[in-house]
Amino acid sequence: MTTNDTSESDILFERAKSVIPGGIFGHYKYAVRPSGPKFFSRAEGAHFWDVDNNQYIDYMCAYGPMILGYNHPAVDEAARKQHAEGNTVSLAAPIMIDLAETLVDMVDAADWALFGKNGGDATTLAVMIARAATGREKIIKIDDGYHGVTAWMQAGTPGTTEADGVDVITLPWNDVDALESALTANPGKIACFISSPYDHPVMRDNTLPMDGYWAGVEALCRKHGIVLIIDEVRSGFRVDLAGANSAYGFTPDLVCFGKGLGNGYPISALVGNDALKSAADSVFFTGTQFFNAVPMAAAKATLEELKKIDAANTMTRLGTKLNEGLVNVASQHGYRLNATGIPAMPYYRLDGISFEAHTAWIDECVKRGAYFLFYHNHFLSTAHTDADIERTCNIASDAFAAMGSPDQYQE
Amino acid sequence: MTTNDTSESDILFERAKSVIPGGIFGHYKYAVRPSGPKFFSRAEGAHFWDVDNNQYIDYMCAYGPMILGYNHPAVDEAARKQHAEGNTVSLAAPIMIDLAETLVDMVDAADWALFGKNGGDATTLAVMIARAATGREKIIKIDDGYHGVTAWMQAGTPGTTEADGVDVITLPWNDVDALESALTANPGKIACFISSPYDHPVMRDNTLPMDGYWAGVEALCRKHGIVLIIDEVRSGFRVDLAGANSAYGFTPDLVCFGKGLGNGYPISALVGNDALKSAADSVFFTGTQFFNAVPMAAAKATLEELKKIDAANTMTRLGTKLNEGLVNVASQHGYRLNATGIPAMPYYRLDGISFEAHTAWIDECVKRGAYFLFYHNHFLSTAHTDADIERTCNIASDAFAAMGSPDQYQE
Repeated sequence: MTTNDTSESDILFERAKSVIPGGIFGHYKYAVRPSGPKFFSRAEGAHFWDVDNNQYIDYMCAYGPMILGYNHPAVDEAARKQHAEGNTVSLAAPIMIDLAETLVDMVDAADWALFGKNGGDATTLAVMIARAATGREKIIKIDDGYHGVTAWMQAGTPGTTEADGVDVITLPWNDVDALESALTANPGKIACFISSPYDHPVMRDNTLPMDGYWAGVEALCRKHGIVLIIDEVRSGFRVDLAGANSAYGFTPDLVCFGKGLGNGYPISALVGNDALKSAADSVFFTGTQFFNAVPMAAAKATLEELKKIDAANTMTRLGTKLNEGLVNVASQHGYRLNATGIPAMPYYRLDGISFEAHTAWIDECVKRGAYFLFYHNHFLSTAHTDADIERTCNIASDAFAAMGSPDQYQE
Repeated sequence: MTTNDTSESDILFERAKSVIPGGIFGHYKYAVRPSGPKFFSRAEGAHFWDVDNNQYIDYMCAYGPMILGYNHPAVDEAARKQHAEGNTVSLAAPIMIDLAETLVDMVDAADWALFGKNGGDATTLAVMIARAATGREKIIKIDDGYHGVTAWMQAGTPGTTEADGVDVITLPWNDVDALESALTANPGKIACFISSPYDHPVMRDNTLPMDGYWAGVEALCRKHGIVLIIDEVRSGFRVDLAGANSAYGFTPDLVCFGKGLGNGYPISALVGNDALKSAADSVFFTGTQFFNAVPMAAAKATLEELKKIDAANTMTRLGTKLNEGLVNVASQHGYRLNATGIPAMPYYRLDGISFEAHTAWIDECVKRGAYFLFYHNHFLSTAHTDADIERTCNIASDAFAAMGSPDQYQE
């Protein structure tokens, strides 16, 4: 089969560079590959088309927001209806209450909800609430845990200061003993422990919680009066609609949602328990766009649809099938593919060969219409079909054939 | 005339309190008044209706985003068209380039643009770029200057830490000497000076720049290698479409836009000069929703419409007329109304009487259908009409009549 021409993307990218630093910024920048697609022209269901009119089966789902498929009719209809009534107005919208009630109904850990735009709004607010509630300043996070671009999250990178990092303690994943040591070393100083429900770093295999890990963390948090914050911005509604903690058997104090919450409409949410409600009310955290009513209507419709179609289990089934198919195809070509993380958010790595060779294989898949990313976990949506997955396995097989023998790429 | 019944708002507010801390959160919380409207049901042009079906002439414009009128046909059409093609997709949208080019064309200080959701995204990114470019950590801001809810902005409030404030120096407005002293006291340590183009604090009169102020600030910044950041999140396109600095005669390095940029669609932008382009590229600043294409299309259409109708001058004319009308009406009832700030964003304060009495007058206006806010500057839009303003003056007159003689409220 022929591979995609992406010359229109390249032309646009050159134009972009003159008016946007880097041409494409933020996390989208890291997906830019010399011969890869860079700009989309349209999207529908689980597919998008680039500006050269190549079609892709999309396993990034806009880095997570797309969970029911692009242009989902029920979500778009709810958004259209709210837009006709009003979006960003000088008063709050009644839909804000409906959405909070829907989240409180659906999410086990939720007694209340607050809203923002990006996941980073929710994680930042969560940490502020923990500090306000405890009167303590230090926070504990996991080594490669990503919780948005707030300064405390990325202390040490360009544009951050020494002070940004002074209250942040980082610990290895799946290590209750390390947490206990950190608590012993900082008595009465730790406001919160913030972590995703399982470890989904970039550039390396993802790791699920060990048996007993979350029970151990929860017990330590309770013992030391530490607020337990779960960042489900990425995994939200892809592990369990009631919260990943319900699947993993523990109870956090605060849970951050974003991405899938609005199926592409910009909204994030922080939910929490009643014990933290007055602390939540004491923190000043806001934004001009936090009160957009349209994304709230879209989020409510998204949550209802997710529930109706048993979405987390649907995506788990699809992801499992994709993982099995790809591992099998790899094996047929003499490659070993590691699929880690949860099935609805698989991280792929070709084992035993160089990272460059792994990346080259991803490029070969993208060129043939399966949109994978070399360094990041992927996302399933409920719009992916068995036919998409079968076609993806065929593409992967062609990509392995183009790569040739794995022997030439041994590490 | 009868005043508005807001019982449905109150019922919703009670319901909201059980699932949202405070019932209404963020900056919207501070507008909640015992007998005032709390939730909207619809909006159109310069008006909105509350859930009790009372109509209001809206002088808050959703705290600024509404600049061309609610449900503006050209903006909504551009948004609809982009939505049909795709909103949040796994690749960037070509409209991102178009929008950056439009900003670079229109805004004097812009050689490039980056995008976020809220104004606070733009101010936070601006400060990070300044720190990355200079290798310095300290920032200077104006005493009551508001630049979003980032920790450095609101150090000292619940949920912030001691470290959040260590690199922030605050100075009085309109005081070049104070800036010079701060620079002398911190040689080689100041990364940036961030300020709105004129002083628009809450709870007190707003103040325009004194003659020579910005020229003085600019000269000091140049002399000491300090990045000059103008926060036009609130004032953007309401002073001058090319940037308030063009009206005030100086050249900043970075300018932050938000609010009016998308006429209610959630988007903010940071624009800057070529000297800072590589520093901008070096900072990691992103969000899941930064790549929403629909608000970008809406913003491009908004900018084009603003230009077509000479919007800043239109709003200045309307605001001047409103100020003159209200001052005159106040005087007829024996009150002195101070209208400060720019005409398109007037801050009102009844002079010589208590703040409670001022607030009571605002309440009386709101009850009669003119949506003012007691503690915050207001916003004009291009959708306000001369008839709106005449009706507002009549409402204000009725509100003064309901208040009775100012003598009873003397401070």
